[in-house]
Amino acid sequence: MVSTGERVRRAALRLFYAKGFEGTGIRKIAEQAGISVASLYHYVGTKEDLLEQIMLESMTDLLTPAQALAGTVSDPGERIADLVALHVQRHAQHRQLCRVGDTEIRSLSPGRRARVMALRDAYQAIWEEAIASGVEAGEITVPDVKLATFALLQMCTGVAHWYTPRGRLSLDEISAAFVTMARALLSSGARQDGSPPASGPPLRLQAGASAP
Amino acid sequence: MVSTGERVRRAALRLFYAKGFEGTGIRKIAEQAGISVASLYHYVGTKEDLLEQIMLESMTDLLTPAQALAGTVSDPGERIADLVALHVQRHAQHRQLCRVGDTEIRSLSPGRRARVMALRDAYQAIWEEAIASGVEAGEITVPDVKLATFALLQMCTGVAHWYTPRGRLSLDEISAAFVTMARALLSSGARQDGSPPASGPPLRLQAGASAP
Repeated sequence: MVSTGERVRRAALRLFYAKGFEGTGIRKIAEQAGISVASLYHYVGTKEDLLEQIMLESMTDLLTPAQALAGTVSDPGERIADLVALHVQRHAQHRQLCRVGDTEIRSLSPGRRARVMALRDAYQAIWEEAIASGVEAGEITVPDVKLATFALLQMCTGVAHWYTPRGRLSLDEISAAFVTMARALLSSGARQDGSPPASGPPLRLQAGASAP
Repeated sequence: MVSTGERVRRAALRLFYAKGFEGTGIRKIAEQAGISVASLYHYVGTKEDLLEQIMLESMTDLLTPAQALAGTVSDPGERIADLVALHVQRHAQHRQLCRVGDTEIRSLSPGRRARVMALRDAYQAIWEEAIASGVEAGEITVPDVKLATFALLQMCTGVAHWYTPRGRLSLDEISAAFVTMARALLSSGARQDGSPPASGPPLRLQAGASAP
C-alpha cells in the first residue's frame, strides 16, 4: 500500500517531468494523486515543498552511495569507474527524477536552491577529488581536472535522455561501455602547452546547471 | 536597429529559459518586447510558433556548419574533432538557446516536434557516420558507435550548463581540451567480449531528448 505522501510525490514527479514545474498546477497534482487540494497541503505542503523534496531526495540517493565509494575504494581510477557505473545506472533507472532534477532547479527559491546545490557540490567534489588524486598519482592524465569532471558527469547524465529498457543493449552493457569510455578519457593526456593540469576554482556549475 | 520579430524572439527566449515554455505567458513576451499582444500575434504568431521557430533556428545553425564539415573533412578523426569544437563553441556562445532547445521540446505538438527531431536526427547522423567511418578505417575504437555518439554529444552539450566568459579558461582552451578528451574517448577500445563495435538501430534519442 503506497502512502498518500508517496502517491502525491509520484504524481508531482510525473507532471513536473511532462509539463515542468511552472506548467503544473497544484490542483492537477491533487487530482492525479486522488486527494483534495486541502489534504495535499496538509500532507506534503506547497508545490515548491514538493519540488524541493524531490530534488533533495534525488541528490541524496546519489550522494550516499558515492560517499560510501569514496570511503572504501582507494584507487582513484577504480573509484571513478565505480562512480561512472553508479551514475549511469541511477540515471537510466530514474530517468524522470534525474530529468526533473536537471531542468527544474531554476524554479526553486534561493534558499531551497542553495540546499540542493550544496548536495550537488558535494557529489561533484567526490568525482573531482578522485580525478585529482589520480592525476597526482600519475595514473590519470587529463587536460584539466575540472573540465574532465564536467565532461564525465555530463556524458553519464545523458543516459537519462535516451535510455529505454527495451533498447538493443542491456543496462549492464551500457554501464560497462561508459566505464570503458571514461577510462580512456582519463588517459587523454595533459594540456598540450605542457602546463600541468589545472584544478583551480572558477568554472563552478551554475544554479540551474545539469550535472549531476 | 533590431526588428520587431527579433525583439520578440529574444524576449521569448529569455523567458522560456527562465520560466520554461509552460510558465511563460504570451502577455509577458509582448510586454518585454514592448509591443501589444495583437501585434505579437500579427508579427510572429502564437507562443508555440515562437518556440518552434527558436528550435528550428537553433538546430539549423548547428546542422549547416556540420554538413559543411561532413562534405569537406574526409578524415573521420579530424571531422569529429571539428564537430566537437563546433558543438562546444556553439553551446558556450548560445547557452540560453541551447538550453531551451534541450528542455522545451516536450512542449511542441507532435508535428512540430517531428520537424525539430528530423534536424536533430540529421545532425546526430553526421557524428555517428564519422565515428562509424573511423571504426571501419581502424582509426577509431569504441565499445559501441551509438553509445560513443551519445556520450560525446552529451559531454559537449554540457558546456551550455556551466560556461561563463568570466571563467578561468578561455573558450579556445576549453574547446581544445574537449577535442583532446574526445580523441581519447574515441580510442577507448572495442567491447571487451571481443565482439565488434555494434552500430545497429534502437537507442534512438527520444523526443524531449537532449543531444544535441
